[in-house]
Amino acid sequence: MTLERISRLQLQIKPGQYFYVTNLINIRYLTGFTGSNAALLVSDSNAILATDSRYEIQVATQVPELPAVIGRNFPELLLSKLQKSEVLVEGGNLSIDAYQNLVASLDHQFSSSVGVIEALRVVKDESEIELIKRACEISTKAYLDVIETVRVGQSEKFIRDVLEQRMREYGADDIAFASIVASGPNSAIPHHEPTDRELQSGDFLKIDFGAKVDGYHADCTRTAVVGKPADWQAELHSAVTSAQEAGRNTIQSGIQFAEVEKAVNQSLTDSGYRENFTHGLGHGVGLAIHEDPFFGRVEAAKIASNTVITIEPGAYLKDKGGVRVEDTIVVNSEGYLNLTNLPYELLEL
Amino acid sequence: MTLERISRLQLQIKPGQYFYVTNLINIRYLTGFTGSNAALLVSDSNAILATDSRYEIQVATQVPELPAVIGRNFPELLLSKLQKSEVLVEGGNLSIDAYQNLVASLDHQFSSSVGVIEALRVVKDESEIELIKRACEISTKAYLDVIETVRVGQSEKFIRDVLEQRMREYGADDIAFASIVASGPNSAIPHHEPTDRELQSGDFLKIDFGAKVDGYHADCTRTAVVGKPADWQAELHSAVTSAQEAGRNTIQSGIQFAEVEKAVNQSLTDSGYRENFTHGLGHGVGLAIHEDPFFGRVEAAKIASNTVITIEPGAYLKDKGGVRVEDTIVVNSEGYLNLTNLPYELLEL
Repeated sequence: MTLERISRLQLQIKPGQYFYVTNLINIRYLTGFTGSNAALLVSDSNAILATDSRYEIQVATQVPELPAVIGRNFPELLLSKLQKSEVLVEGGNLSIDAYQNLVASLDHQFSSSVGVIEALRVVKDESEIELIKRACEISTKAYLDVIETVRVGQSEKFIRDVLEQRMREYGADDIAFASIVASGPNSAIPHHEPTDRELQSGDFLKIDFGAKVDGYHADCTRTAVVGKPADWQAELHSAVTSAQEAGRNTIQSGIQFAEVEKAVNQSLTDSGYRENFTHGLGHGVGLAIHEDPFFGRVEAAKIASNTVITIEPGAYLKDKGGVRVEDTIVVNSEGYLNLTNLPYELLEL
Repeated sequence: MTLERISRLQLQIKPGQYFYVTNLINIRYLTGFTGSNAALLVSDSNAILATDSRYEIQVATQVPELPAVIGRNFPELLLSKLQKSEVLVEGGNLSIDAYQNLVASLDHQFSSSVGVIEALRVVKDESEIELIKRACEISTKAYLDVIETVRVGQSEKFIRDVLEQRMREYGADDIAFASIVASGPNSAIPHHEPTDRELQSGDFLKIDFGAKVDGYHADCTRTAVVGKPADWQAELHSAVTSAQEAGRNTIQSGIQFAEVEKAVNQSLTDSGYRENFTHGLGHGVGLAIHEDPFFGRVEAAKIASNTVITIEPGAYLKDKGGVRVEDTIVVNSEGYLNLTNLPYELLEL
């Protein structure tokens, strides 16, 4: 697997040219190395890793296929002994300061390249889809457990802790991101940090969360209600759920991202909540929780088979409450495989 | 608090000059805003925040003192209406790509500046020390609980989960970083990811962990032994503990970082383990788990009062086992205040 991914990158590297990789997620994708400090140099026919002494044993275990050099000064370790060459760096990752240090200390022709490895990561292979699927299964099981135990009087933080603990018990290596548990008026805040606010009867309970398995993320959101919903709650929830379904129904490989957005926006316009949908419709999910492709940045591009993306419209009524419904799905030629097996009806807790 | 920190930055900004802040930790430090997407523009007399619509309510709540603009294109929102000016950017944070986009799209005189706000963050104020102290208290309480319940047969991952759950129960908002739980030969790996390896009699159990409270981190390590230690284990543990104590004993404001390292290295040389200490001696702790100052990068600099740092020597015997002892301390004029109240003797579990 590892070498196959480097080979795909090497197709884009000319003889005599080098790619100096500093984004740790990209290094993990290409090599399998999970340490917190590394650089990778790839030529059209070779590759070498650098990391520091804390990871000397780990790098040998995780990446037996590649030679590794150990030290702190990665540019020196990887680049100082090369003949003067063209070296591509990751312009979306390397800081200006690090770049200026490279240019000042090494006699190469550096140039910035953006999104090359990120583009390789868009289409997932089977092993990646399997891990995201497991992360989603853990997430949905944990959610279904938690909503069984939710009670009036529990705080947002308490519910978060139970949910996250449950994901770990079901096999998550970690949580995918800081869970959003937003109750009552707080559900109107798209990205709400859980507080000590205690759940009350009549509250919306919006939970945006996910598990992480072997580096791969899940991302799901459901909004439930405590007790019987008020009319405005049922209507808002129905509007968002319909919009999400309208978006999902357009999904198949080859469709433009803009077409999916159009379907969602039309549905929300029809129900009267278009103005209350204030964020992006979704994003790629993989080794990063948010990764290419992003709805809203790639309008005219077409969605490729085996892209894993979220579809997550929401509608938010300030100081009152909000609803978001989000699935993580795998696109295929017939449509999509939904990795998030959670009900769409407004659950009454 | 918020405005006071911006005022300190403004002392370094000339009239007509702007500082464009993109590092989210620095934005949190200066303003208190905790959202995941923001930029801050500071002149010698004003400041304005930009964030996206997900955080519109949050920014108004967290930072009522500052005007905020909402959108996605922060350079446009903050910089496009200024007269041509000198704009400092954070060279250690802004990517080459983002920088090149700034230069191409806006008619300002951009220049890169490194470590300005990081330097302001080195010396902590009372409220910061209080939060790190709480994070350390939670961490040490959780550790003492966990070592009571450790049993042969438990996996590293299980022990990690119990420890992290305990920190949350004691009031941690989150964990400070991915806990290291390393047993037996795995303890020889300085940064080990917990595995399914089950604890055996005679194992070292090295745990490097911390809680996070309101953005502030704790960082502690202790190494215990399961059952009675072998002679080599007692000797190794004693060597590292003595070295750590030798380092701590030199600490007081005004001493050079190199002096602390010298004391630790001398102690390890005397005991014969100098070669087995392969990483840095410590680092600043605050809103980031690793932040300025770093031992090994600032040799001749003197440690200032109210700097919070770790002292964490270790010694690692490949395939056999390793020991690290780490405290988080606050430097003062008489010496230091140790925030990590954990025993130094080799605990037998």
